[in-house]
Amino acid sequence: MLPYNIHHVAIAVSDLDAAIDSFSSQYGFEVLSRERIEDQGVEEAMIAVGGSHLQLLQPLDDMSPVGKFLSRNGEGMHHIAFAVTDIEAALEHLKSMGVTLVDDAPRIGGGGHRIAFVHPKALAGTLFELMEIDITSRSIERNNG
Amino acid sequence: MLPYNIHHVAIAVSDLDAAIDSFSSQYGFEVLSRERIEDQGVEEAMIAVGGSHLQLLQPLDDMSPVGKFLSRNGEGMHHIAFAVTDIEAALEHLKSMGVTLVDDAPRIGGGGHRIAFVHPKALAGTLFELMEIDITSRSIERNNG
Repeated sequence: MLPYNIHHVAIAVSDLDAAIDSFSSQYGFEVLSRERIEDQGVEEAMIAVGGSHLQLLQPLDDMSPVGKFLSRNGEGMHHIAFAVTDIEAALEHLKSMGVTLVDDAPRIGGGGHRIAFVHPKALAGTLFELMEIDITSRSIERNNG
Repeated sequence: MLPYNIHHVAIAVSDLDAAIDSFSSQYGFEVLSRERIEDQGVEEAMIAVGGSHLQLLQPLDDMSPVGKFLSRNGEGMHHIAFAVTDIEAALEHLKSMGVTLVDDAPRIGGGGHRIAFVHPKALAGTLFELMEIDITSRSIERNNG
């Protein structure tokens, strides 16, 4: 139920192509996947680094949450995503603690994963994301594949 | 030479004990190590999350780098640390690219590791740390142990 990994650290960038080029030339990182998520107003690129990822987020417009973040803060770290196996159980636990959530119930995020954000005022001024990674169904797919 | 893992994501906090309590009660995380680093003006706690860590940083005084960060920004994400096997080779590569460094040469950080910071203006407004994890000598220690 509780987080078993840091799935990714998200960084807001103003120019996704330029950021990808710099991460590649400075650190040798390669992009695993790239996706436009209209619902969240972002185009995102996922970079694998060891057992975790960097997620680069470029806003689709200035009024999206990441667009507003960029206007206020400039480029920089945006949130930390924890991998959980049961997002509903994790949300119930946080609600029972009185933790302020951005999302009371899971919604669909990048890669089709169920996600929910926890409000930065809940802990260390940091926006945390819960991301459900269904280990069981992936194992079943692998067994059938 | 290039980063092989996200060793930790550092979060600046104003009250380390309170932050540890909240990470424990909200997410079930436990503190692996706790250390006062006079040289950097911080007391830090390391929390393992899967194959990576969260590092909580409380400044020892308002004029330390983390103290100034807290005054300007409040609590929140401070830097991302990449694990490298050869920090000198990584720094040479970044210098050859014209990347602006905070530390031209390695210095000793938490846990006795050799570390160096890369200036946030170099990439995505983000303060990156290189942290040398000497896999070879740890293997030798294990073989001799």
